[in-house]
Amino acid sequence: MRPSGRQPDQLREIRITRNFTKHAEGSVLVEFGDTKVICTATVDRGVPRFLRGSGSGWVTAEYGMLPRSTNTRNDREAARGKQGGRTIEIQRLIGRSLRAALDLNKLGENTITIDCDVIQADGGTRTASITGACVALIDAINVLKKDKHGALKGNPVKYMLAAISVGIYKGEPVLDLDYAEDSSAETDMNVIMTDKGGFIEVQGTAEGAPYTQDELNKMLALADKGIKEIIALQKAALES
Amino acid sequence: MRPSGRQPDQLREIRITRNFTKHAEGSVLVEFGDTKVICTATVDRGVPRFLRGSGSGWVTAEYGMLPRSTNTRNDREAARGKQGGRTIEIQRLIGRSLRAALDLNKLGENTITIDCDVIQADGGTRTASITGACVALIDAINVLKKDKHGALKGNPVKYMLAAISVGIYKGEPVLDLDYAEDSSAETDMNVIMTDKGGFIEVQGTAEGAPYTQDELNKMLALADKGIKEIIALQKAALES
Amino acid sequence: MRPSGRQPDQLREIRITRNFTKHAEGSVLVEFGDTKVICTATVDRGVPRFLRGSGSGWVTAEYGMLPRSTNTRNDREAARGKQGGRTIEIQRLIGRSLRAALDLNKLGENTITIDCDVIQADGGTRTASITGACVALIDAINVLKKDKHGALKGNPVKYMLAAISVGIYKGEPVLDLDYAEDSSAETDMNVIMTDKGGFIEVQGTAEGAPYTQDELNKMLALADKGIKEIIALQKAALES
Amino acid sequence: MRPSGRQPDQLREIRITRNFTKHAEGSVLVEFGDTKVICTATVDRGVPRFLRGSGSGWVTAEYGMLPRSTNTRNDREAARGKQGGRTIEIQRLIGRSLRAALDLNKLGENTITIDCDVIQADGGTRTASITGACVALIDAINVLKKDKHGALKGNPVKYMLAAISVGIYKGEPVLDLDYAEDSSAETDMNVIMTDKGGFIEVQGTAEGAPYTQDELNKMLALADKGIKEIIALQKAALES
Amino acid sequence: MRPSGRQPDQLREIRITRNFTKHAEGSVLVEFGDTKVICTATVDRGVPRFLRGSGSGWVTAEYGMLPRSTNTRNDREAARGKQGGRTIEIQRLIGRSLRAALDLNKLGENTITIDCDVIQADGGTRTASITGACVALIDAINVLKKDKHGALKGNPVKYMLAAISVGIYKGEPVLDLDYAEDSSAETDMNVIMTDKGGFIEVQGTAEGAPYTQDELNKMLALADKGIKEIIALQKAALES
Amino acid sequence: MRPSGRQPDQLREIRITRNFTKHAEGSVLVEFGDTKVICTATVDRGVPRFLRGSGSGWVTAEYGMLPRSTNTRNDREAARGKQGGRTIEIQRLIGRSLRAALDLNKLGENTITIDCDVIQADGGTRTASITGACVALIDAINVLKKDKHGALKGNPVKYMLAAISVGIYKGEPVLDLDYAEDSSAETDMNVIMTDKGGFIEVQGTAEGAPYTQDELNKMLALADKGIKEIIALQKAALES
Repeated sequence: MRPSGRQPDQLREIRITRNFTKHAEGSVLVEFGDTKVICTATVDRGVPRFLRGSGSGWVTAEYGMLPRSTNTRNDREAARGKQGGRTIEIQRLIGRSLRAALDLNKLGENTITIDCDVIQADGGTRTASITGACVALIDAINVLKKDKHGALKGNPVKYMLAAISVGIYKGEPVLDLDYAEDSSAETDMNVIMTDKGGFIEVQGTAEGAPYTQDELNKMLALADKGIKEIIALQKAALES
Repeated sequence: MRPSGRQPDQLREIRITRNFTKHAEGSVLVEFGDTKVICTATVDRGVPRFLRGSGSGWVTAEYGMLPRSTNTRNDREAARGKQGGRTIEIQRLIGRSLRAALDLNKLGENTITIDCDVIQADGGTRTASITGACVALIDAINVLKKDKHGALKGNPVKYMLAAISVGIYKGEPVLDLDYAEDSSAETDMNVIMTDKGGFIEVQGTAEGAPYTQDELNKMLALADKGIKEIIALQKAALES
Repeated sequence: MRPSGRQPDQLREIRITRNFTKHAEGSVLVEFGDTKVICTATVDRGVPRFLRGSGSGWVTAEYGMLPRSTNTRNDREAARGKQGGRTIEIQRLIGRSLRAALDLNKLGENTITIDCDVIQADGGTRTASITGACVALIDAINVLKKDKHGALKGNPVKYMLAAISVGIYKGEPVLDLDYAEDSSAETDMNVIMTDKGGFIEVQGTAEGAPYTQDELNKMLALADKGIKEIIALQKAALES
Repeated sequence: MRPSGRQPDQLREIRITRNFTKHAEGSVLVEFGDTKVICTATVDRGVPRFLRGSGSGWVTAEYGMLPRSTNTRNDREAARGKQGGRTIEIQRLIGRSLRAALDLNKLGENTITIDCDVIQADGGTRTASITGACVALIDAINVLKKDKHGALKGNPVKYMLAAISVGIYKGEPVLDLDYAEDSSAETDMNVIMTDKGGFIEVQGTAEGAPYTQDELNKMLALADKGIKEIIALQKAALES
Repeated sequence: MRPSGRQPDQLREIRITRNFTKHAEGSVLVEFGDTKVICTATVDRGVPRFLRGSGSGWVTAEYGMLPRSTNTRNDREAARGKQGGRTIEIQRLIGRSLRAALDLNKLGENTITIDCDVIQADGGTRTASITGACVALIDAINVLKKDKHGALKGNPVKYMLAAISVGIYKGEPVLDLDYAEDSSAETDMNVIMTDKGGFIEVQGTAEGAPYTQDELNKMLALADKGIKEIIALQKAALES
Repeated sequence: MRPSGRQPDQLREIRITRNFTKHAEGSVLVEFGDTKVICTATVDRGVPRFLRGSGSGWVTAEYGMLPRSTNTRNDREAARGKQGGRTIEIQRLIGRSLRAALDLNKLGENTITIDCDVIQADGGTRTASITGACVALIDAINVLKKDKHGALKGNPVKYMLAAISVGIYKGEPVLDLDYAEDSSAETDMNVIMTDKGGFIEVQGTAEGAPYTQDELNKMLALADKGIKEIIALQKAALES
């Protein structure tokens, strides 16, 4: 029934490649099927003004799509002179989620900037971004741990995070929507959970008809299954 | 336990004043306690380029806060030269929700622009905005209905919508958070539902600890109760 | 002769409501007939860079119109990414006038920011803004006076100010033009005066034919009468 | 008493050089003493959207200062990415005044764009600009008159315009303030009049103390004298 | 002598991977050693306004660097709201060069947009971009050739182009500078040549001391050798 | 053969007028035939952040064209809100070249800002700008030399610089292209050289056909001749 032939509860093939580029403290290529995102984590000493002297660190995120990562070319945001609303919404979500995964006090007055740049899009770029960014973030924190001057006050990583989309496609709840499904789904929900099973963020939008509590529960169950599988892949990547 | 002395499942006093200003096709002052938002709906012939010739209408929304609607003054976005990320996120939510309430084909090639301007903020400005905007939207559509040239193709209103925030405050699920609660809640969730009881949007964010499925369900039950009460107030306002 | 039936030297009904919103140090709703403006005054410690260390304070103003405060909707300036020329001209006028009313040295190194936001427009928004802003400014200064750390060096208020428009409408000088008059007046003049009767600003523009010295004098006489009445209303409001 | 040794009612030396640059339909270098402004007038077929099909023409103006036209360098507005408030205020004044000098219907659907660029500033740049722009505008209209396709419907020039500043300097009304006077004047007034003696614009600002009706009248009398002299110079330049 | 151990006339390893991403008509990953750039070519019907109706096509280019493609993170240009001067200079060079390689009349009224996005930088990103973009451009034109509606009027490709940097490093002319060399070279020159051996662009800048005609000639000879080798690689890639 | 009747190796009449405006430390009007550019040099204490404490000075440049310096009016960049790509390219070239002429360490922590504003354009505005800017720069440095607090550490001027365009016009190499030639040249090259004969910058672009090494050499020989003549004029101007 799914355009890709997948089972309703089946993820696309997910690949996580660490050290994808050479300069960043953390650099991950994450692939959810044909969706490919480069996630880098950059460590800088110091924090934004509102945190100076607080002893607390900061994590922020930026997101972008290469103009031709999509089927038709999108204007380059740098050339248009501003980021679009969708971009801003997504990068706020990425930053907020990752901050929830850390104890920022233990990070010390360091800032980690996450960049998620989509080089090929086929649905689920925000969930792939969060999934890859979590691995890049941990790599960057491991660099900080080895840095005598890094000022970490213990391990700031409280949780691992992964994200997945679920939705109602042709009346049936499905896991990890690709573009063909996403563009005609009745409901589109993004779920971010920790490796302990708690929710960090749930965002569910009725694209067609309103959805019911029962549908919501079924989607959350699918998300729970998918996120467990993704977290296993993240852990395997970090151990390799 | 709540700073306001309210019960966990108790809304603030909600007031909906129609025809608040004189020029707009729909103009509503909505008050959720001390949160006050002017919601106007403007009807224009024609639609954005991507819909021209489709026969379909469009609804879009913009949101703003007066600089001193808050406890400390925020920079005026017009003077800074751009809308902040929070503003963009909220106005996208308002527009998306209201479009879900309508059959845009029945609207004909008309555009309705919703403006939600917060004149005093005390938590819950986005849920108040959606609640007031829905009433202003219906008033504007009623103007269109009386307009011979309005080109409506039947009643475009599929649902009434209302929105409410719920959250976990000091460990307990509560309804309709004011600023004092919102700024220290562990979880903050905005729920938008129709008068038929379906979900249009659920957005739940862990501000402190991750939340559980059980907490999610309790919050959704509170939201369901609150939204039923608000929709009754909207209907009363529309009939007055 | 006037669309509103008023006498040539008759003001619209003017109402001044203090403490209109709860957060600002000064908050006034000013109404000149159907023109309604929220004027707030915000006190901040410190001054812009060019005054640091001078011992002098600063007053600045910003102006905006809600998009649908007018008969047809204006683009939201925050969304367009810049303030229009008319907005900039008006807010410069408001700030310049209010600074002329104060002894900035006695204000100490404090900044007062005036926000004038038009929620309903029917002509004369700039004169209503200045009139309301003066009251909000005085309320804010009274807050500063009670503040031990406020660093006032005496009473900085040299004058009360009010503003009114006058013009030549259908060949006759009239006071306090509403939109119907303003949009077809031959001459449009804004006059700002102190409670001592001196001029702070006179701006007279020939919209149709050039005007004569005699017409100028008649308009100034009308303005003088109107401003005396408005200042009485300001004083009554401040005493209530 | 004046820093320049001039009499209170004495203009600086005023020079008007036509055909200063070779490309524009009208190109004037205007000098008020050490203040030097290049004023060009450009003719384009067609009008802005709001006038299309109306048969009416349009005049608009832009103003700029070379960064080092002043004693200390000002940031280049093109590099900062926006025009400052003072620039916007001045260019609106120039455009509004020049439109008042023409019968726009007789101009036909042509647009004339005035550019006033200050290459050296010593006070009075806005009045010099209007004075020079009026000559450039007439030169451009004369080019249009000779153009068979120009679509003029009679002579659009209703008036000649000149502008001058007057002020209260050390307690005495003076004509044509230079920078040394302008920066310490108690009152600063710009007056624009026609060759028939009518007022197009009066803008008087109290920089120090409020001014009286008597002072206003004395300043207007000085302006009237100065403008008569300037208009004689404009006419001489146009005849040369 | 070179940090990389290369001979003065030795290129880095150059790899050209076609069809690197799936959506674009042409998509190439080009690698000059550790410098990696994704070059895509997008075909759109129609041309910019200044060419409409001319029968001629257009080629334009945009360039960007991922924020952490470099050793320290650069601000994201989309977030800053403008492209930097270096970016603009480079994308103008890319577009200008590629247009010189085509007969735009034979392209018909089609626009090809080249996007060069640096995912890892180690010197020579502009020369790598042009080299990769030329291949992506030819792939896109081959798509157009197969498109019945593509409106090509013959083969628009007049030349193949490649680009290489040369410079004076520690007093000696060298080919294809990497970052370690580039950042301390006395002279930096970028050369773009066709497969017929003609120059499309030569840009040579003295970073330290001025350079002589003899040094210029030696650098051009190195560039000629390098470009011949690169063009062989481009042709091999296109044939594979 | 040349539209102006000049010999292939003949410059236009070049005039250099020092002290053209009165405020700047260096102020030059440079004319290459009908191309006229005002070049000012402004001295400020202090350097940009990246040089603070280094003991080194800085030179930067900005370029602009008056809107009607050209045959048809160009939009004012300040009004459009950004500088165009050509402007940015040119001002980067001017700044980079002038920095190469100085020993920035001897300049001490001073910044010199060059402004090149084209008041009339007829081809070669960038080469005229560099030529005039070099003279203004030397005048400004001479002001610094006389300033006890100027902190110069010896004479920072290593070279004099001049710039000239050369090209292939109708198949023949020519010197100093005017607009009529520039707009139809096959090749356009800008050359910047020192008074010692070394190259600072060579930028040669094939506008039509690619050019050969032989053509390149002929153009460089013409440039060498022209620059020697221009430098003689610069020196004469500086001595006058």
